Amino acid sequence: MIKICRAIWVMRFDASDRLARLAAVAVVVLLSGVAETSAQTPSTPVAGVDAALLDDIVIGSRILADFGVLDGFGHVSARHPTNPNHFLMARSLAPALVTADDIMEFDLDGNAVDARGRTVFLERFIHSEIYKARPDVMSVVHTHSPGVIPFTVTKVPLRAMFHNPSFLAAGAPVWDIRKDFGETNMLVSDSALGKSLAQTLGDKSVVLMRGHGDVTVAPSVKMAVFRAYYTDVNAKLQSQAIALGGEVNYLTPGEGEKADKVNFIVLDRIWNLWRMRILPTLAK
Amino acid sequence: MIKICRAIWVMRFDASDRLARLAAVAVVVLLSGVAETSAQTPSTPVAGVDAALLDDIVIGSRILADFGVLDGFGHVSARHPTNPNHFLMARSLAPALVTADDIMEFDLDGNAVDARGRTVFLERFIHSEIYKARPDVMSVVHTHSPGVIPFTVTKVPLRAMFHNPSFLAAGAPVWDIRKDFGETNMLVSDSALGKSLAQTLGDKSVVLMRGHGDVTVAPSVKMAVFRAYYTDVNAKLQSQAIALGGEVNYLTPGEGEKADKVNFIVLDRIWNLWRMRILPTLAK
Amino acid sequence: MIKICRAIWVMRFDASDRLARLAAVAVVVLLSGVAETSAQTPSTPVAGVDAALLDDIVIGSRILADFGVLDGFGHVSARHPTNPNHFLMARSLAPALVTADDIMEFDLDGNAVDARGRTVFLERFIHSEIYKARPDVMSVVHTHSPGVIPFTVTKVPLRAMFHNPSFLAAGAPVWDIRKDFGETNMLVSDSALGKSLAQTLGDKSVVLMRGHGDVTVAPSVKMAVFRAYYTDVNAKLQSQAIALGGEVNYLTPGEGEKADKVNFIVLDRIWNLWRMRILPTLAK
Amino acid sequence: MIKICRAIWVMRFDASDRLARLAAVAVVVLLSGVAETSAQTPSTPVAGVDAALLDDIVIGSRILADFGVLDGFGHVSARHPTNPNHFLMARSLAPALVTADDIMEFDLDGNAVDARGRTVFLERFIHSEIYKARPDVMSVVHTHSPGVIPFTVTKVPLRAMFHNPSFLAAGAPVWDIRKDFGETNMLVSDSALGKSLAQTLGDKSVVLMRGHGDVTVAPSVKMAVFRAYYTDVNAKLQSQAIALGGEVNYLTPGEGEKADKVNFIVLDRIWNLWRMRILPTLAK
Repeated sequence: MIKICRAIWVMRFDASDRLARLAAVAVVVLLSGVAETSAQTPSTPVAGVDAALLDDIVIGSRILADFGVLDGFGHVSARHPTNPNHFLMARSLAPALVTADDIMEFDLDGNAVDARGRTVFLERFIHSEIYKARPDVMSVVHTHSPGVIPFTVTKVPLRAMFHNPSFLAAGAPVWDIRKDFGETNMLVSDSALGKSLAQTLGDKSVVLMRGHGDVTVAPSVKMAVFRAYYTDVNAKLQSQAIALGGEVNYLTPGEGEKADKVNFIVLDRIWNLWRMRILPTLAK
Repeated sequence: MIKICRAIWVMRFDASDRLARLAAVAVVVLLSGVAETSAQTPSTPVAGVDAALLDDIVIGSRILADFGVLDGFGHVSARHPTNPNHFLMARSLAPALVTADDIMEFDLDGNAVDARGRTVFLERFIHSEIYKARPDVMSVVHTHSPGVIPFTVTKVPLRAMFHNPSFLAAGAPVWDIRKDFGETNMLVSDSALGKSLAQTLGDKSVVLMRGHGDVTVAPSVKMAVFRAYYTDVNAKLQSQAIALGGEVNYLTPGEGEKADKVNFIVLDRIWNLWRMRILPTLAK
Repeated sequence: MIKICRAIWVMRFDASDRLARLAAVAVVVLLSGVAETSAQTPSTPVAGVDAALLDDIVIGSRILADFGVLDGFGHVSARHPTNPNHFLMARSLAPALVTADDIMEFDLDGNAVDARGRTVFLERFIHSEIYKARPDVMSVVHTHSPGVIPFTVTKVPLRAMFHNPSFLAAGAPVWDIRKDFGETNMLVSDSALGKSLAQTLGDKSVVLMRGHGDVTVAPSVKMAVFRAYYTDVNAKLQSQAIALGGEVNYLTPGEGEKADKVNFIVLDRIWNLWRMRILPTLAK
Repeated sequence: MIKICRAIWVMRFDASDRLARLAAVAVVVLLSGVAETSAQTPSTPVAGVDAALLDDIVIGSRILADFGVLDGFGHVSARHPTNPNHFLMARSLAPALVTADDIMEFDLDGNAVDARGRTVFLERFIHSEIYKARPDVMSVVHTHSPGVIPFTVTKVPLRAMFHNPSFLAAGAPVWDIRKDFGETNMLVSDSALGKSLAQTLGDKSVVLMRGHGDVTVAPSVKMAVFRAYYTDVNAKLQSQAIALGGEVNYLTPGEGEKADKVNFIVLDRIWNLWRMRILPTLAK
């Protein structure tokens, strides 16, 4: 009995508006008899990488799935913390199911360092080519964001509606794969396609992909996930504002630049909330 | 105690963002004392049909209900794997409640092979007539998809917004029951109506039904369910794109054909996620 | 232990896509030690009224709250089964919390038969006056349906989009309280207001209330709830169809009449689903 | 065992449509062995302030997060009940996580009375300056309400659609920070900005903030939260009504004034529902 209680403590069930899930997990842990091992902090599955970074990738993948920004597809990656020519990304599976054990290491040509038979994402070249082109980028998120897809197929540019998505005030270009590559299967499935996408991204934080989705980049996983979330929120609100009719008073580039600095200050407040929601789903 | 733990293992509670449900089920199983029998793989209730196919019908029915693509109505069927002149479909009940035990066998005139007093769906002729007309079709899904219904009553055609619903790039015709049959109760309640619907479907993957819903077809249950889901998603996103104003840049037929091939490759990734969400609801 | 298991059986946890709730309730029942009394079928709290009718009012109130058709306000009533000059309605509380014990009996002037200090709804006159004017009506539901409210303040009439809300094809008039009563607090808080509303309803199934919500009526509680639900669904879909632009092809009155007959045949299929979702919330 | 049951009683699990959460919490409480202390009424953490007022702030913060009116940001405050020159507000954390222990006391210059190293909200000046300017206001709520943000960036005024948001009939002015302060980071991060915002609010119940969100005020925490919720609901419904095309028949100021009086009468009905939903999330 003492063992059980300890296991439950480790899962931090103390405060969350999704306590139901958490408690349910506690029950599973209790009943299954696997509590003690599964609730321990896992040893890091990628050599030389801190568990906290893998945790960010896992939390980010799952919270975006939880919000519906991701469905069964899409991915969150991080540049390797000590080898800038490598990056970290899950094997091919739904983002809602990603665990630290699923994360693999890739070089910037999209080759897995140690595949061990695991299947990899067809679109890893989105990530490899952006890491090549943008040394400042430490994380890349690719989604089929439902709010954003309509903006990938119209001439209406996505613009910053309020202060949290202020990074959009610098512009969010649209990449149309058909322009240079003709009729394709729409996927960024090789380096040439990835390079073209990275060029359209330029020095921005977000690039939209026609008939596909978007990519957000940032100096950290947390911020790339934050941007993926608020890009989706902004797109939905901008659609509503346009539907009201008349001119829309967007954030100016100057306001956007100033407001985005505040996002870095408050980021942990929302990340802590998101992490608390996701942690219970991780106990095996 | 050993028995209980075994039962829970069988339910694969190890990773899911709906762990709460699963754990809750585990509790029910534990408390009710019926764990061992109910958690076993069921013996197949339809002679000569593999349990995996029935499982696909059950998972498909329930995940579409979970997404709100189906409410209390609609149905998922499969062509009989060894007798192409028969098909499999649940008795008349809400799709969220379908189990393998509810699945019955029908001939292509819509007659139940062995009804045993079970009530059958009024609209089974949607399925029987499509299986007659389209030898390539192995599964049929009928929904009152809320995203799609608006497109059944306007002149705006449903078109492919992004790569997952790429099968729409080939066209999604609208069948208006009033055109040939006058004022009816709107239901496809006999073979003549079903035949007319199948003719409008033609060689496409989706047919819309005016003032009613839609039908998706595919070479497998998984793909027919995938198409039902993404037809609903696409319709909602297309509505949003149109509301932004101006021209919409849809997938071309060529892009659609190429992108749809990728869907067959990645299908299991999203199906595994869906199955993991639904499995816990199946333990009695 | 035997006692506990029996109590849980009574709650019918055997099949539901909301098993989590149910199981959770089972746990509460188990832990609280009040299982046996609370899980029993309650003795009916209104003299001469079958428990099944009270159950319908409770399930209907809660499922509409679950769908967001009702929030903290609104009510479901039934004509008294043996005394047509009386009706049954909860004391004043949020519909999501209504239990059979909360249901009171009223006469057609809106007077409580045996108040016992319980507070009553200000708008019970919606119900009393409709029961007076429409002998065929056995149930009345009043909601602030979010889909419908926009249709109460425009000149665009609510019309039948598909076969489930076919009862709308006969028309859904809008009652504007300001027309005969000037500037009020918007509530139907006396018999004169209720009578005016009932006159606008006429022989229809639905009446919209300007700047307020709607009322649905039917020959049974189940059907009045079904109509409240599908009136909300229809309104949302009609808004989307109108936003697509161009003419909308609504159900004709003839189609509506025929399709509505089918609703009576399939009603129990969706009601069983709804009841299964709500039952777990009722165990104390 | 007796101790456990008592703890569960305290949490009032007896009736709620979110019983799952509650029961889950009960399980956690049971398993963790912390039941008795955590389920007790907490001693008030702010000197001289009744626990019931802190409870209102906590319930209000969490229910608005539950409805999505708040995400990781925003705050609910109350004027100090015995010192009108002070107010109560959580330390800087996501509203879904606020507990009574997190609530701090501030003076009307936004200084914490006893910070004890806790971080405070950058935008506490929204609250301090409104309490200064409006002696009648006892509570202030600031949100990034997704329904409302579109109305902060257009010329379309937010107006009362139905009786619950009747307080909007008096008008809801928009404050544009750029008008007097040029390009900023959009935040109300000092007294001068707060004062300007309070001047635009004037004697109204709601003020919109361009590219940011809104603020609602009221004579009680419950009513300020009610207004934040219904401002969001109203904005969404007004968007839908406008999209239908044609003139919208809003509540007149006279109707709004009368209807708002009823809101004070029925407030506890919806608050009780909200409190019942949130309480389970509070058990540690």
